[in-house]
Amino acid sequence: MQAPLAPPPALRAGLLGFGVVGSGTHGVLAANRDTIRARAGCAIELAVVATRNASRARAAMEDGIEVLTDPMQVARHPGVDVVIEAIGGTTDARDCVLAAIAEGKHVVTANKALLAMHGEEIFAAASARGVTVGFEAAVAVSIPIVKALREGLVANEIEWLAGIVNGTSNYVLTQMAAAGRSYADALASAQSLGYAEADPALDVGGGDAAHKLALLAAMAFGGPPRLDAVHVEGIATLQAVDFLHAARLGYAVKLLAVARRSGDELQLRVHPALVPRESLLARVDGRMNGIMVKGNAAGVTMYYGAGAGSSETASAVVADLVDLARAVRGGGQVRVPPLGFWEGVPQPRAASLGDTRLRNYLRVELLNADSAVLVLEALSRHHVPVIKGTQSRNTFVVLSGEVLESAMAAALREIEGMPGVQALTRLRVEQLE
Amino acid sequence: MQAPLAPPPALRAGLLGFGVVGSGTHGVLAANRDTIRARAGCAIELAVVATRNASRARAAMEDGIEVLTDPMQVARHPGVDVVIEAIGGTTDARDCVLAAIAEGKHVVTANKALLAMHGEEIFAAASARGVTVGFEAAVAVSIPIVKALREGLVANEIEWLAGIVNGTSNYVLTQMAAAGRSYADALASAQSLGYAEADPALDVGGGDAAHKLALLAAMAFGGPPRLDAVHVEGIATLQAVDFLHAARLGYAVKLLAVARRSGDELQLRVHPALVPRESLLARVDGRMNGIMVKGNAAGVTMYYGAGAGSSETASAVVADLVDLARAVRGGGQVRVPPLGFWEGVPQPRAASLGDTRLRNYLRVELLNADSAVLVLEALSRHHVPVIKGTQSRNTFVVLSGEVLESAMAAALREIEGMPGVQALTRLRVEQLE
Repeated sequence: MQAPLAPPPALRAGLLGFGVVGSGTHGVLAANRDTIRARAGCAIELAVVATRNASRARAAMEDGIEVLTDPMQVARHPGVDVVIEAIGGTTDARDCVLAAIAEGKHVVTANKALLAMHGEEIFAAASARGVTVGFEAAVAVSIPIVKALREGLVANEIEWLAGIVNGTSNYVLTQMAAAGRSYADALASAQSLGYAEADPALDVGGGDAAHKLALLAAMAFGGPPRLDAVHVEGIATLQAVDFLHAARLGYAVKLLAVARRSGDELQLRVHPALVPRESLLARVDGRMNGIMVKGNAAGVTMYYGAGAGSSETASAVVADLVDLARAVRGGGQVRVPPLGFWEGVPQPRAASLGDTRLRNYLRVELLNADSAVLVLEALSRHHVPVIKGTQSRNTFVVLSGEVLESAMAAALREIEGMPGVQALTRLRVEQLE
Repeated sequence: MQAPLAPPPALRAGLLGFGVVGSGTHGVLAANRDTIRARAGCAIELAVVATRNASRARAAMEDGIEVLTDPMQVARHPGVDVVIEAIGGTTDARDCVLAAIAEGKHVVTANKALLAMHGEEIFAAASARGVTVGFEAAVAVSIPIVKALREGLVANEIEWLAGIVNGTSNYVLTQMAAAGRSYADALASAQSLGYAEADPALDVGGGDAAHKLALLAAMAFGGPPRLDAVHVEGIATLQAVDFLHAARLGYAVKLLAVARRSGDELQLRVHPALVPRESLLARVDGRMNGIMVKGNAAGVTMYYGAGAGSSETASAVVADLVDLARAVRGGGQVRVPPLGFWEGVPQPRAASLGDTRLRNYLRVELLNADSAVLVLEALSRHHVPVIKGTQSRNTFVVLSGEVLESAMAAALREIEGMPGVQALTRLRVEQLE
């Protein structure tokens, strides 16, 4: 927790667009300001934003952020070190990103279409100018898969990767599988919940997944994004009955983005596919994303998380900002603190186990079946809530609600000492919620 | 793919210990040399190794590596920039690591016990000397979870994390669950397969998981590793019958390492726990590891991969070396290339879909049930191997073996045109192998 000798300058960001991604980024930077600052070792300031939405502009101004209407003015703004492109599309976004780079500013973007189509040009411009283009949010937003491929798995020859990288189509497929709904029904449900655009073609047609695959494959196998080389089929022709047949054969149906090397050839494909039901990818349901990567050293690793959402996308955008902030702080060399924090943060104190509230599983072996009621009475005396109890002959199994460990321990001592009890097993339950 | 103006110097590494981790690192550096160099932007040379094993020493010398018997001599060797600690234990390893740091060398280690116990001292020494201590391999070896917590999820307040981080005990539990074996039987099987040490106490007792949890929690919540604060229970008292009861209630039994913040308190616990069967953690089986993290921006993300193994550990060790090599190359600022490669690599050419071999699922709706045989004959004519065919009235479902897309397309055209065929659906099958 070494403190820098002099307070480092802040990283000043300019934001193009104040929609889902932009307002999420603003929100996360504000909500987690102290922790982000402690981890980055310098503050990250949202200095200026481009938006034409009056109410959002007002909210930004209340936070002391300069508001402009022209994204290009923000991209060239002399007061920012990094430009966050969150306007979407591939024309204005491209112009603004190239303009920011030309001015020597770093860029962070969640725009996969932009990078899949113009990435080669943009990355070359950034390299020539000595600035970085962060795009962790562009692929499977909250999952740090860009970092995993560019850094974590850097020692590996990648053999293949396969991903569920479009949350909208995965939601539709999950509905078709679970509820036997038709494609049209499932898509209408996704649209009514706001999970699908009014024009869902890019999602359900596989185009969005192809953009992400082009970026993933470039990082895994080298070379520029090769969008033209991706074979793309969408999910619109799928029928619910095939999900049933697939399940009987031991498979789930998913829209997969696959890059697979065999010899000196590389397959790049997006299409619906049967995947083995016991595979973790088959368990990636609803709007979630999952990417499986096979490397020749690491073997199979897999990454799972939200594939859409405002704060989820912001999580990745801000991670890219922190990379830059750590460089600002360190002036190079040692950028990442050993345990992740440059500055101290208020330390949570270690909880005593007795004060912890957990759920429990109990198995009580009784000398005679009638003693179950005595066990229930003992649990009740110690205020252990019982969610479920099942008895089969002399075996009594109980699932408890949340209860203090100290109360549970007292109840266990009493039950163990009961004359009608032969043996007692207790395991804790973790709901992962 | 910007090439550096002058050939950068190599990163020179000294290796302490030439056992599982050391020889794996040597092997991966050699096998993937060109790709690693292209990604790092400079070569990584294994310059000197400390080992007392004569045959391994000979193998190293044949590769032009200097061999010494005294690890301390390698730790202080003037010809190395980074020391890879792979001797294990917490006494000699600590002395060597501190000596290397004192000489201004970076350190990379897979030694969780060392860092959980002496991390505060070692990280402070490294910070004071301006060197880094890489330990990606110390937690869930092949999974880049250190990078995910320190960088990928850096924007988040972490709410909780829960991991299966000991492969040996997870193998034992998987055996107990799948085969109904007793704990003693399952452990004996693990030992006979070389998955468990002769003295398995640290694995099955939860101590190893506690080391990893102390490191994970420090990165998630700040502060030094707090090994003393971890409540630890192992798996030795588990009985197979409880796996059955748990399954009936909808749960799997796993040895979990949990860090959970509530208010200003932090729970740190390692113990067997029931986890909901539909959770991805419940599907982490055998020797694999999995870690689930809940952040307030990203939501739940999950990371899965091998928890042990020679090349798997080396994958993470070399990732830490590449971080250093990129700094050597760049002298600071822009360390990670946009798409992961600093130098060009031989490009795999895009495979044409027709030349790709895939498995297929077919559903054929027949006008009369007798036509199934005609479908089979058509598949046979186009050399499509049939793994499985099932017929129910007029619906005929076929699972094919691997076949060229071009052959499959020809077969599909023929089947679609058959007078006895009313409708045809084809989906590809991805085995993820």
